[in-house]
Amino acid sequence: MNDFKMPVALLREKLLCFLREDVGMGDLTTAAVAPTGIHARAQIVTKEPAVVAGVREAQILFKAMEITIVKSINDGADVPPGTIVMEIEGPADSILTSERTALNILTRMSGIATATRRLIEKIQKTGLRVSLAATRKTAPGLQYFDKRAIALGGGDPHRFHLDDCILIKDNHIVIAGGLEEAVKRALTNSSFTKKIEVEVRTPEEAVQAARLGVDIVMLDNMTPEVVKTTLEALAVHGLRDKILVEVSGGVTEENIMEYVRLGPDIVSLGDLTHSVQAVDMSLEITEVKTTG
Amino acid sequence: MNDFKMPVALLREKLLCFLREDVGMGDLTTAAVAPTGIHARAQIVTKEPAVVAGVREAQILFKAMEITIVKSINDGADVPPGTIVMEIEGPADSILTSERTALNILTRMSGIATATRRLIEKIQKTGLRVSLAATRKTAPGLQYFDKRAIALGGGDPHRFHLDDCILIKDNHIVIAGGLEEAVKRALTNSSFTKKIEVEVRTPEEAVQAARLGVDIVMLDNMTPEVVKTTLEALAVHGLRDKILVEVSGGVTEENIMEYVRLGPDIVSLGDLTHSVQAVDMSLEITEVKTTG
Amino acid sequence: MNDFKMPVALLREKLLCFLREDVGMGDLTTAAVAPTGIHARAQIVTKEPAVVAGVREAQILFKAMEITIVKSINDGADVPPGTIVMEIEGPADSILTSERTALNILTRMSGIATATRRLIEKIQKTGLRVSLAATRKTAPGLQYFDKRAIALGGGDPHRFHLDDCILIKDNHIVIAGGLEEAVKRALTNSSFTKKIEVEVRTPEEAVQAARLGVDIVMLDNMTPEVVKTTLEALAVHGLRDKILVEVSGGVTEENIMEYVRLGPDIVSLGDLTHSVQAVDMSLEITEVKTTG
Amino acid sequence: MNDFKMPVALLREKLLCFLREDVGMGDLTTAAVAPTGIHARAQIVTKEPAVVAGVREAQILFKAMEITIVKSINDGADVPPGTIVMEIEGPADSILTSERTALNILTRMSGIATATRRLIEKIQKTGLRVSLAATRKTAPGLQYFDKRAIALGGGDPHRFHLDDCILIKDNHIVIAGGLEEAVKRALTNSSFTKKIEVEVRTPEEAVQAARLGVDIVMLDNMTPEVVKTTLEALAVHGLRDKILVEVSGGVTEENIMEYVRLGPDIVSLGDLTHSVQAVDMSLEITEVKTTG
Amino acid sequence: MNDFKMPVALLREKLLCFLREDVGMGDLTTAAVAPTGIHARAQIVTKEPAVVAGVREAQILFKAMEITIVKSINDGADVPPGTIVMEIEGPADSILTSERTALNILTRMSGIATATRRLIEKIQKTGLRVSLAATRKTAPGLQYFDKRAIALGGGDPHRFHLDDCILIKDNHIVIAGGLEEAVKRALTNSSFTKKIEVEVRTPEEAVQAARLGVDIVMLDNMTPEVVKTTLEALAVHGLRDKILVEVSGGVTEENIMEYVRLGPDIVSLGDLTHSVQAVDMSLEITEVKTTG
Amino acid sequence: MNDFKMPVALLREKLLCFLREDVGMGDLTTAAVAPTGIHARAQIVTKEPAVVAGVREAQILFKAMEITIVKSINDGADVPPGTIVMEIEGPADSILTSERTALNILTRMSGIATATRRLIEKIQKTGLRVSLAATRKTAPGLQYFDKRAIALGGGDPHRFHLDDCILIKDNHIVIAGGLEEAVKRALTNSSFTKKIEVEVRTPEEAVQAARLGVDIVMLDNMTPEVVKTTLEALAVHGLRDKILVEVSGGVTEENIMEYVRLGPDIVSLGDLTHSVQAVDMSLEITEVKTTG
Repeated sequence: MNDFKMPVALLREKLLCFLREDVGMGDLTTAAVAPTGIHARAQIVTKEPAVVAGVREAQILFKAMEITIVKSINDGADVPPGTIVMEIEGPADSILTSERTALNILTRMSGIATATRRLIEKIQKTGLRVSLAATRKTAPGLQYFDKRAIALGGGDPHRFHLDDCILIKDNHIVIAGGLEEAVKRALTNSSFTKKIEVEVRTPEEAVQAARLGVDIVMLDNMTPEVVKTTLEALAVHGLRDKILVEVSGGVTEENIMEYVRLGPDIVSLGDLTHSVQAVDMSLEITEVKTTG
Repeated sequence: MNDFKMPVALLREKLLCFLREDVGMGDLTTAAVAPTGIHARAQIVTKEPAVVAGVREAQILFKAMEITIVKSINDGADVPPGTIVMEIEGPADSILTSERTALNILTRMSGIATATRRLIEKIQKTGLRVSLAATRKTAPGLQYFDKRAIALGGGDPHRFHLDDCILIKDNHIVIAGGLEEAVKRALTNSSFTKKIEVEVRTPEEAVQAARLGVDIVMLDNMTPEVVKTTLEALAVHGLRDKILVEVSGGVTEENIMEYVRLGPDIVSLGDLTHSVQAVDMSLEITEVKTTG
Repeated sequence: MNDFKMPVALLREKLLCFLREDVGMGDLTTAAVAPTGIHARAQIVTKEPAVVAGVREAQILFKAMEITIVKSINDGADVPPGTIVMEIEGPADSILTSERTALNILTRMSGIATATRRLIEKIQKTGLRVSLAATRKTAPGLQYFDKRAIALGGGDPHRFHLDDCILIKDNHIVIAGGLEEAVKRALTNSSFTKKIEVEVRTPEEAVQAARLGVDIVMLDNMTPEVVKTTLEALAVHGLRDKILVEVSGGVTEENIMEYVRLGPDIVSLGDLTHSVQAVDMSLEITEVKTTG
Repeated sequence: MNDFKMPVALLREKLLCFLREDVGMGDLTTAAVAPTGIHARAQIVTKEPAVVAGVREAQILFKAMEITIVKSINDGADVPPGTIVMEIEGPADSILTSERTALNILTRMSGIATATRRLIEKIQKTGLRVSLAATRKTAPGLQYFDKRAIALGGGDPHRFHLDDCILIKDNHIVIAGGLEEAVKRALTNSSFTKKIEVEVRTPEEAVQAARLGVDIVMLDNMTPEVVKTTLEALAVHGLRDKILVEVSGGVTEENIMEYVRLGPDIVSLGDLTHSVQAVDMSLEITEVKTTG
Repeated sequence: MNDFKMPVALLREKLLCFLREDVGMGDLTTAAVAPTGIHARAQIVTKEPAVVAGVREAQILFKAMEITIVKSINDGADVPPGTIVMEIEGPADSILTSERTALNILTRMSGIATATRRLIEKIQKTGLRVSLAATRKTAPGLQYFDKRAIALGGGDPHRFHLDDCILIKDNHIVIAGGLEEAVKRALTNSSFTKKIEVEVRTPEEAVQAARLGVDIVMLDNMTPEVVKTTLEALAVHGLRDKILVEVSGGVTEENIMEYVRLGPDIVSLGDLTHSVQAVDMSLEITEVKTTG
Repeated sequence: MNDFKMPVALLREKLLCFLREDVGMGDLTTAAVAPTGIHARAQIVTKEPAVVAGVREAQILFKAMEITIVKSINDGADVPPGTIVMEIEGPADSILTSERTALNILTRMSGIATATRRLIEKIQKTGLRVSLAATRKTAPGLQYFDKRAIALGGGDPHRFHLDDCILIKDNHIVIAGGLEEAVKRALTNSSFTKKIEVEVRTPEEAVQAARLGVDIVMLDNMTPEVVKTTLEALAVHGLRDKILVEVSGGVTEENIMEYVRLGPDIVSLGDLTHSVQAVDMSLEITEVKTTG
């Protein structure tokens, strides 16, 4: 998956919302203790190995604060502890005021990208072509940031919104009155520009869904054994190549390889975005200059 | 710490922002597969033991979607797996469209509240009166939600914004040209309505800060041994009762008790909000009715 | 295509933006001439035959103004001139102040739905299953309204945003350095949840794109003759059933049937949304009551 | 009518709203197919003769996307097909992402300006000084854009908001309980800074309104014959020079000259903004450079 | 001048902005000290004689906080000290949290309305028909509130925005290169729906402006003597009845009657909105009930 | 109190909101009378002695309008009448359009800062160290501006929001069921990062509150005699040095020195922000150049 980017002018507004919530009327500590006219240089350093994500976001935020980016590594870079992620320079008060917001973005996004990349590396060692995907289980309001971090880690961001792909879940099937009815309605009622995916719980449902013509079946909360049976059932009916198979639900960092080895097209994990382990990074002032 | 609450009318807007990001033009799956005029009842159930948080937020969101809250447990309740957190009733399409946003809020906030409560229970077993506090290391833009979850778990939310407490950190001291200078400026330049806290790195600095008249000293990134020495130094100089002592930096769920046993006033942990383990909850449709 | 709907709470805000722009500080005429405490009943009547669209939007706007909807026809209804589209009742000043905004929405959306439906009826008479689709050539900022009107008219709304479908256009091909390169990158770099469509200018490009594995080829600005040749070329290579074929560019209400008869899957027209003929509707006060 | 302009900083936000709706999380196609570091030059060309409008808006949007305006024609210029409206240069991805939003603005505004200018030219050939005015029948939310396009075409934008001029319409008269009552209230209750206009349906009402002291009478939905009688009645009573006479309602591009020849001061048409024929323009990449 | 009103749904958003700024994350005091489930009744009482304004605004704000309005006096009422302006009932925490915001609105608006009414009463005693008008010298961002308070006091709110009336001021004349040039351009370039006013500094300029055909002349910063000479000059040239004469600049509550007695049409004062004396009002809890 | 500052990028948005309200669709006068391509230089001059405040705000607004700041005095400077506060240069239309908004900010903020400084100077002559503080009685929505003006005048801005300090007022005590109960709850339920202040009405309550451990007691609406008795009671009980004493309510510019001489720590006045006397300033064009 390539990196996708919101245009700077639109993303800046989102970032300033984060800052606005944090600042309130003003950064009282900085106003009280920092003399005026101080210019500083600072580094953001990672204390852990990390696939760095959020550099573009931090850059845009810092620039909005009239801070210059002296240098920075690329989003998606896999770096050892001690790496200087960014070096910045500008008014000391701007740096102090935006430090925490920038770090909160970088450490969360890097946490997501790092976990994603590590799992993908494990998958790639099997030689199988199985994609790792996220879900919509992001932090509320942070879909853009969480999904972009997934992409930077090499994962598939999956759906962005409820309007970009049809995904028929268990509750939809209950409401529609059955899988077949739900799928038929989706085929009739949706735009040709959108794919249709459906959650199935048994091999039979998977075959049924594939026959009805969906693009993707999601094997939901199945044990590895049932996934295996399902993939075989699809193959027997000559349907395996007609659809994409996504395994989801109950997949964890521990058991994921059991699923991967069965050769689905995609494995997806909510943990990647709902239970993030932030990467430890800090910002240190490295130089202070008094300006005219 | 008591639960603090943003007024409904203000919080609703924040919640609708989350929903707006998720929905885009509309929930295409629901529009395609759910027949019109369907009314449903649904339950949100926790699959893990949890200190539940985010019930008020989910209620406000559901009501904004014209869904009725049939019953719900209280925010802050400590419940076993299988507990019905909320039971709701309303238009099926409204439920399907808002399900994920509501769950993303509930599972994150409950994750924070649960981890907070568990640690506090461990601390309380010592019989010592040590508070557990959060930091500003929240998910970006989610300060309200993360901090409220901390409070519901029994923790101290610490600062909300950069404008509600003076907290002089290492970088401020660098810019100000020393601890003494920074503290003196803070004392001169800040409102009498705000407390002043300062990060110190040695026992000597702690004593110095306390003598200068700050309200709180933060022992930053100290080993338990150095914390011990610092507390003793403060006592020796008759300063221990004049200030609050917060231990922060390098504290983890593993080593926290080593610090607690030394008897500081507060221990704070970034992990509580930057590395959240979401509680597993799901929403299930339990009843479907066709309306006129 | 089924009707898709933005949740009321989100749509209300968009509608209030329209009203806010129109009202400014207040409706001075109504404030000056309407005595207080007047209650009125009013009807919105179409003066032309119309496929009505925008009823839901007008309802939400009126309710936000504390006006009651007495009755209204369904969005998508095909009605003769003189039909009462809505009957409303409420404070006279609320009705007078929101009248024009409601009518501007209804008349534009109905204009789009009507033109769409008329063309679809012509297509359906051929017995061929060819969909009629819109483009992103909407009025700026009105994508939701224009696309929903298309759906209510029976058309396919096509892409909503730049993030819901990959559509490689001529300028992308120029930047990528060729059709093959562009398609390969799209296949590598996009989420499995998104379809890939590509614009082609010759039968050869269509065959090439289909072989590369795109989901949809758009025959761009081709004469009916070249469309015919392209469809034949795809059939000859056994590719016709593997992809969807969309004809776009240079299609008008006049020449559309020449394309339809060739049997593509979809024909799309920018005119449906960029050059709308509004349906003539008016709002008339039918009853005036003085309230206590 | 001179061109009126919203300040750049305010207009930019409106334009970014349009872009935001279109982009969503990001322009997936461009992210997937455009290699990084590509710089491009592009032209916007009109395929039809046009009075161009929206150049300022497109410029501001492009600049917000970090695109340079190489050259552009002036808003209001009347140009033949094939004219290069704008030439721009900048990051290829910025151009690709903002192309459609810019074109949607330019083609709609130019459509309005062109239709307006053509009618004004017809009016001017009569040698009579009759103004052509728009109404509030704009696309919802696009009042600024539609009205500015009218002004660029040479027309009078008429009211902007409900707070800038008193315009007593039929429904107001019903609510007020009669023309005289409505006008008297308006005279008493409105600011001296606002003009008062009233809709009349008969020559008698026109005379009555003029006598009461309104600034403008709007002859609403009258046939040319009745307009003629009304103008004569006003002249007979010595009132013709005391007021402005606007003819409105039922005027179309076909019958407008019948009204113009009678010599009212203003003729207004809803069609100019509610039923716009967009001008066909396209953006073509003309040069591609790889940067460092 | 009649009272003008922004629709509730639009005004509520403005009022919630005020509340949002004040509340931040939440009303910590109320959260800490008010037990849950407390219902209260409260009164807003004026401690000074006042023409009350802002009742509608306070009502909308309280209702948005789920507080019931038990009774309230009418906006514009002239009341003695001790009058109960509003009586409200609802959740105690809602009342405590919104108290200050509601009072800040009421006391400022009432301050403006009271000062306005007092001056108008003085003017009315002369028997002359001279209007009292405000200017655009409001508190920034509070134009709606300040202008509505003027209207409730009986004054003329004058211009609302820069787009509702042409007002040529000294700086415009400098830029245009002279009064005549400025007025001629305004006559040519403005919509027939807008009045044209021009600032003049001498009797000669007043005559010149009136001859050019403006609607209003503003006698700017003239002494009473020069105003007198100007009014005579206009009369001598038969122009006095053709235009409105506004006296502005240098008028204060002290010297205003010297101007009024000369019989201009309007006298305007910046003080009415830029230097407001708030009316002293307070909110007292009168009853407390514990609910279920 | 030091000057606190909202970051430019955040403050700009607030300032543009003020401008947007004033401009509407556009500055019609300037559009009509100012020829294009005019560049001007202008001065803002104070006509009264003033402690100037709002210079930073005006600078940011002007820059957002593409106007250059040629020179300006510092916020907080105490200057005589005739002082040039700012000199600016830029497009004439930008200057004309933003003039009033900039002046409304400057004149109000300077009015607050001037009144604050004058009172502080009086206090300082006594040689006593008594702070002068504001309250939350600001103009609605203008807390940032009003509080910053207080700080620039040398005063203490007091609370910014309801979430930065616990302040238990009379109504809270009524709801809590007594002073002791209210204070105990506050001590238990609030974050260690926030100070606790409580309103008291008698010397006894002051002693009680101080014993309970609050940080600040506010002597509310006491006569100077009762304040004296209260301070003595606190001293007698050895509590005077343990708490800060704020005198508030009923303090005016006339009687303030009677309170100051008693030696409380802080005296606060609502008048400073709710009844502002704006400083008279004007903007004059000093030079006009036609640009290419």
